Parts: sequence; structure tokens; C-alpha cells
Amino acid sequence: MVAPLRPLSRDEVAARLTDSLFAPGSHFPDTAEVHDWLAGLSRRTWMKTRRAGLDELTGWVREPDTGFLRHHTGRFFSVEAVSVERDDAVVASWRQPIINQPEIGILGILVKEIDGVLHCLVQAKQEPGNPGGGLQLSPTVQATRSNYTGVHKGRSIPYLRYFREPAGHRVLVDIRQSEQGAWFYRKRNRNMVVEVDEPVPLADGFCWLTLRQLAELLTVPDLVNMDTRTVLACLPGGGRYWTNSVASRSGDDFRAALARSADPSAPSVHTTDEVLSWITEARTRTDLRVHRTPLRGLPGWREKDGVISHHSDRFFSVVGVHVEAEGREVGAWSQPMIEPVGTGVIAFVVKEIGGVLHVLTHARTEPGYADVVELAPTVQCTPENYELLPDAARPRFLDEVLRSTRVRFDTVLSEEGGRFLTAQNRYLIVETDTDVAVDDPHYRWLTLSQYDELLRHSFYVNIQARSLLLCLRSLAVV
Amino acid sequence: MVAPLRPLSRDEVAARLTDSLFAPGSHFPDTAEVHDWLAGLSRRTWMKTRRAGLDELTGWVREPDTGFLRHHTGRFFSVEAVSVERDDAVVASWRQPIINQPEIGILGILVKEIDGVLHCLVQAKQEPGNPGGGLQLSPTVQATRSNYTGVHKGRSIPYLRYFREPAGHRVLVDIRQSEQGAWFYRKRNRNMVVEVDEPVPLADGFCWLTLRQLAELLTVPDLVNMDTRTVLACLPGGGRYWTNSVASRSGDDFRAALARSADPSAPSVHTTDEVLSWITEARTRTDLRVHRTPLRGLPGWREKDGVISHHSDRFFSVVGVHVEAEGREVGAWSQPMIEPVGTGVIAFVVKEIGGVLHVLTHARTEPGYADVVELAPTVQCTPENYELLPDAARPRFLDEVLRSTRVRFDTVLSEEGGRFLTAQNRYLIVETDTDVAVDDPHYRWLTLSQYDELLRHSFYVNIQARSLLLCLRSLAVV
Repeated sequence: MVAPLRPLSRDEVAARLTDSLFAPGSHFPDTAEVHDWLAGLSRRTWMKTRRAGLDELTGWVREPDTGFLRHHTGRFFSVEAVSVERDDAVVASWRQPIINQPEIGILGILVKEIDGVLHCLVQAKQEPGNPGGGLQLSPTVQATRSNYTGVHKGRSIPYLRYFREPAGHRVLVDIRQSEQGAWFYRKRNRNMVVEVDEPVPLADGFCWLTLRQLAELLTVPDLVNMDTRTVLACLPGGGRYWTNSVASRSGDDFRAALARSADPSAPSVHTTDEVLSWITEARTRTDLRVHRTPLRGLPGWREKDGVISHHSDRFFSVVGVHVEAEGREVGAWSQPMIEPVGTGVIAFVVKEIGGVLHVLTHARTEPGYADVVELAPTVQCTPENYELLPDAARPRFLDEVLRSTRVRFDTVLSEEGGRFLTAQNRYLIVETDTDVAVDDPHYRWLTLSQYDELLRHSFYVNIQARSLLLCLRSLAVV
Repeated sequence: MVAPLRPLSRDEVAARLTDSLFAPGSHFPDTAEVHDWLAGLSRRTWMKTRRAGLDELTGWVREPDTGFLRHHTGRFFSVEAVSVERDDAVVASWRQPIINQPEIGILGILVKEIDGVLHCLVQAKQEPGNPGGGLQLSPTVQATRSNYTGVHKGRSIPYLRYFREPAGHRVLVDIRQSEQGAWFYRKRNRNMVVEVDEPVPLADGFCWLTLRQLAELLTVPDLVNMDTRTVLACLPGGGRYWTNSVASRSGDDFRAALARSADPSAPSVHTTDEVLSWITEARTRTDLRVHRTPLRGLPGWREKDGVISHHSDRFFSVVGVHVEAEGREVGAWSQPMIEPVGTGVIAFVVKEIGGVLHVLTHARTEPGYADVVELAPTVQCTPENYELLPDAARPRFLDEVLRSTRVRFDTVLSEEGGRFLTAQNRYLIVETDTDVAVDDPHYRWLTLSQYDELLRHSFYVNIQARSLLLCLRSLAVV
């Protein structure tokens, strides 16, 4: 019987995580070894994804009335459609397919002290939608409720028990967060980080990495997967110790301003209560009406050759795939996926104000959000989609981002490969001198410390902003 | 042009509110004068409420298919019905009528420094459901969106502009909170407190009171109305200054423990992150399915003589009223109301642990909650309703509360008189020595400071617990 871990104060947790952000790893002391390890795994791992018509997917059925596409067991997810009305938007109404996945899954990362430093247990995993079919670094556990309450009760999912029965261990993160509200109808996953203080056998395909190593790997295209990014983003990522540690490293003014941004006592443009009031106003003002509507014959969309696409061939399509894989619970399956058109641009515009780095934050509405509005990156769009729309719809700050000469981060990362086929976004962090009106209804300047506080709660910070926050924090060491 | 008020830190706001909690009022230096003022108003105010059948209500229509009862304009609210399924509950499924009021209204209290102390502007207001038709102390503004976006644009609602256009003033509270999830389907109101620093003309029926005076008036039955209680509960009600101020007053061990409970640095049984994880687990685990179902012919309910009642004559009825009033925008109207059967018991069981007062908090599910579970009082029920239910359904701690000899607060207060007819609850705070398992899935010990933090966000603390928190804080001075 191992003694239960004593709960720590948030400051204590933050300090230990900060140490991990500065520590080379024990498992792979040189991060280059991670790439060798991945290359070795790639040679032994095998997944083949082949396109198939939506009506050829084994195990998937169309509902007679609506044309909704669901698994014959009623589990996993379904492809449905919604009509969306927003009085205040340039495009005030539209219809679209959307994925309905009401179950709350677990995205869990196990952490453990190795040589006195916290390491994260990540899994090199293939998903059918990963660009090039490559391995990506996933959380320790990605499990839907169907996975772990089904016939196997999740016995086949390694490490799941730490997240299902965390008593005696130390829960560092445990919060439901939303995912893409443009493609998912109110999907939430439970983001968890659990620290253990007992021997953990290392399964094949898993490795222990420090936050420093993960920060470095974030600059590699399509490597750290979306689920890993959202879970890591929910870790305490600031506090006085973080600020002092980052500030004491060599660096330029940018890093000094970044360090101060994570200090809760540093001056901010808005108080946190003002930020919360701004969110309340946006959520109260925005009149978003989302209703289910039949997928079959959806106006504006066509179904042809087993693919559902927009008449303009923009936005995204719903496609089917057959998957064959080695080393998975199930060796072959079929499923629908969302395939976006084009590569998105997801950017934080940041600025030093009073010596403190601030992020220009957008109050964004998406049809699938549980609570109308979430805080999004300054820019989040697929530029090609706007070529057909009125000029007034062109995203603010997009041109500034694309023309910026002060780029601090620029890496293409991909979204969840279990639902999205080759969904890639260019994640950018650019500095600006732009001013924004202090009472602009749609934008506010926030500090890292304010994000740190908001991320303790559900549905404030959207998944794209969570990824970028992780990238921004990584600039403290990379 | 008055200079805009500088935003204050939360600590600064909390300190000024603490001073108000210790200050006799300037407007009515002796709180007894409030009663004289109310008595004078009562003689000049007039409201007559008369029962009427649901099918006799002018302006209200039944939807042909469902029997839902709605206003012919589509505004205000409607009476609908839901089927509820909860796998984990003793009563695993039922059907019930429910009020659907999707608009987010404003509950706003204006505050202003008078003689250096913050005073709250409250209105003495009659509502058809108030017990005995009496005046109650309401917020400065209670306005539905229909009120303020309708033909009059709210011009006739005094003081509304401070809440609609708060720029230049100081927003102390601005957060959407839920209301009774047993009677309302996902109703949320925007709880606001706005401080002004300009001359405010005093309209008839309004007066300025300090938090001290409101604390005293909370011990008067049916006087401080539900909307005032929820708004005041959302004010910062703790911090080091509060603790020191309360501790320095004469008092017993209870008050000393209460003082420490509001100190964020005082030891608590659980860390706030543990509390948040417990909420996440409850919201993930609870499988609540709520679907609209026809009100007409609702199984388990009967409609007779224009009243919808449960077959057992317990729980509540849906009734109609005709109202005639002087001094309202509209002089006469009809409306449906919910009339509960019996007086409820709403109680905090509190305990000094390590010198710090803790509140035993229940993770409660109600069909109308936006997010499955909210934090509720230790006990929240109408005891008579349980006489017909299995013993296993009897609320935990109810008997302990009813038999307690260590009662710190005991006042009957009423719920929203605009929707509920004579809905009264006995609000109790009782001390205990009871132990509760540290990992009980349904209960946790929380400090006042932890509540203070949670109340900055939506949908954590239910409306009954918000009322009781206000009562608990009032024990610092009453």
C-alpha cells in the first residue's frame, strides 16, 4: 500500500511544473532521441486509411427521416445537421452538418517525478486523420465513455484506472472543456492530469517527457496532437515562481514581458472581474439559435459519390473512410470524418503593455458551444473561406497576422485525427503595436495569468486558444 | 461630464463592502425606520390577486399539440412539461410541468457612497405571489429582456440605464446565475451590481440601505426578496480585510470561525482544485436526460377546474391568477404561476474544522440546470413530499437539521413572487459535530472563501445556497 499523495496548493503545483519546463528529460535526455524512438515505432506500426462512400461504411446506418448517420449500436458519435441563426453576424443564418458526440470522454496525462522532475507519459499514436498517417504524441489516455463502460469496461485501455479511480493519487487537472464548436455539437471532454508516486510500467509506444521537451516538440509540424495540447494547456502555467524562473533566464524584452504576464500581481489592462463582465455581456447579448435539421437534402450542401460537400466546395466535407490498423483494440473499422477545405490560420496577436505581455482575445460564437461564446484566438479562420463572403465578413487582424514581420511562433499543427481528416492549422504568435478600443465589444487584452485563472473552469477558453496558450508558454524556454 | 470611476482590485472592492457591512445607514439611520417607511408605502400601494382557471387567463393561449401555455405575443414565459430520467436516483424517472423563460433578464442593484459608505438602492415592491401580498425589498431593477427591448425600450424602468450602459460606472458584479432548476427550465438571470458616483434622484418606493441594514432585515420573514438575495450573494464577501474586521468584533467561537472561513489563506478541508474536480466528476457521472413532453394529459398529473396538480396533491400545482395593481406599468394582467405545496426546508449544516467554519455542500441535480449539477445547501426539500416516497429517498441530514439545538439562523423567506404563488422556505443554519466521509461522492465541506471564488462564475452555486450564503455572512454582524 502506497501512502496517498498529499494535495498541494496551486502555487506548489505550479512551481513543480515550472521546474519541469526547464528540465531536460531523464527518459530521453536528448530530445533528438524522441525522433529516433518515433522512427523506430513508425517502422513497426501500420495503419491504412482508404476513402469510402458514406453509404458503404460497415456498421453505420442512416436514420430514415433525417438522414443522420449513426453507428448501428447507437455508440460513438453521429453526423447530424443544424440550422444556425445569429442576428448580429454578417452571415446571419446557415445550415451545416455537425458531429454529435454527447458522451464526455477522458483525455488524461499521467505525470510522475523522475529524478526529482515531473515527467508526462505520452503515447505515440496513429489516427486515421493524421496528415500522412503519421504518429503523433497523444495523452496517456484518450477514452470515450463507450470505450470504458462497454463490454471490456476499459480493461484493455492501459493506465485508464488512474483516471477512473484517482483516489490516493494527486489530481492536478480535472476540468471539462469544449472542442471545435464549428464541427462538434456541444462536445466536451474531461481534461485530466494525475500525478502518481508508484512504479508505473512503461507500455510499448509510451514515453516520459518533461514539459521542456514537449515545448521543444511543439515546434515540429503535426507532432504534438490536439488532445495533448488541450490537456497540457489546462495545467497551472504561471504564478510568481514561473515569472521569476523565466525572468532569470537570458532573453530579450519579449521574454521579460512574457514572464511578467504570468504573474498574478502584474498590472493588466483589465481586471479579471472586468473580463468576466465582458464575457457575461457577450453571452447575454449574442442571440444564437441552433436547431437540428435533416441532413438529407440539407440546403446549401450536396451529397454525391458518398461525400457531403458545400455547394461552394469550401468549408468542409463529410467523407467516409475504411481503416485497417495493427496494434489497436479493433483491427479494422469504418467511420465518417470531417475533412476541412484548406489550412486554417490560428493566431494570437500579442503586445507588451506596461511591460506585461497581453494577448488580444476574441469573444467568439460557434454553433456547437455549450454557452454561446468562448474566448478564441485573435484570428481563427480558413482564409479561403472568406473569398466568397462579403468583405465585411473578413476576419479582423487576419491581414496584420499574415503580413507580420514579428513572428514569434509559426508551426502547422493538426486537429483530432479520430474525427477530422487532415485538419491542419498554422498556429502563429505575432507581436503588434496595434491599438484596440478599450471598449471594443469583441476583443480584450488578457494576460497569461488571467488565462491561467479562467482555465480552471469549463468553457471559457476555446480549444484553439488553449493550443496557442501552450505554444505561448513554450516561448519561455524555446 | 463626471469622470469615469477607476476599476478597483477585488480586494479594494471587498474592503469597501466590508465597511458597509458594519455601517448603520445614512438614509434610515435606525433600521426601525425602514419598517415605518414600508408601512407608509403599504397604505398607498395596492395589488389584488385573484385565482383564475388556466383557460381563463387573458392573453394566454394553449398550443394545440402540446397544451403548452404561452403568452399570445410569444413573450414573457411559457408553462411546458418535461420528462426526466436519472439512472442514479431513487426516483429514476418522472414527468412534470416546468416554466420555460429563455430570456436572460437583469437583476441589478445600484450602489453609491453616501457619507463614505456604500449603500444599496432597493425598491419596496409587491408581486402577486408574495405571501400576504406584502411589499418586499427588491433589487433596483428587475427587468426581463421583453421589458427592456419591447415597445417602450425600458424607458419606463427607473435606473435601468445604469445596467444597460454601465460604461463610466464601476461594475462590481456581472454574472449570469441559475434559478430554481426544479421549476424553471434553464432560466438564467444576469446578476449585476453597479456603483455610481453621480447624483441619483430617489424615486418613490426606493431607499438606500447599507449591507449592515440588509443583514438585519434578512431576519424578518418574507422581507428581503429572492432577487435581492441572489444579487447580494454574488458580491465579494470575504478576503483578509473582512476576516480581520469580523474577528476584531466581540463574539463567540462561532463568529471567530466564521471570520477565518472568509480568509483565502485559512486552511480548508479540500483545496479549491479538489472541489472543482469533485464538481467535474459529479457533472460527468450524472446521466440526466430531460426532454420536452406534452403538458396536456401529462402522466401523473391532472388538470381540473383550471389547475394542474400532481395526483398525490404534493409537489406543486400550476394555477392562474388575475392581478390588479396600482403604480405598475400595466394596471391589470393575468398569468399562470407555480404554487408549491408546503413550506420547504433549506439548511446549511456548518462545522468548525481546524478553527475554520466549513459548510456541508451538496452536489445536486435538478432537471432545469444548464449544467447538470450545482452546489446546493446541505438540505433542500419540502419534508411533506417525502412522506409518499421510499425511505431511501429521505434527504440526508434533514432530521439532524430539524432536531438541532444549535440553530444560528432560522427565518422563513419567500421565493420569486412574479412566478411562484406563496413559495416559502424556512432558511436554517445549524451547527453540527457530524463527520462526513472525505470521499463522499455527494457532499464536501467548503469554506466561505471557496464559495466567494466560485460565485465569480456562472452555475456553480444554486439559488438556495446563494440565499443561505448571504444569511451566513450576515451572522458576522447580526
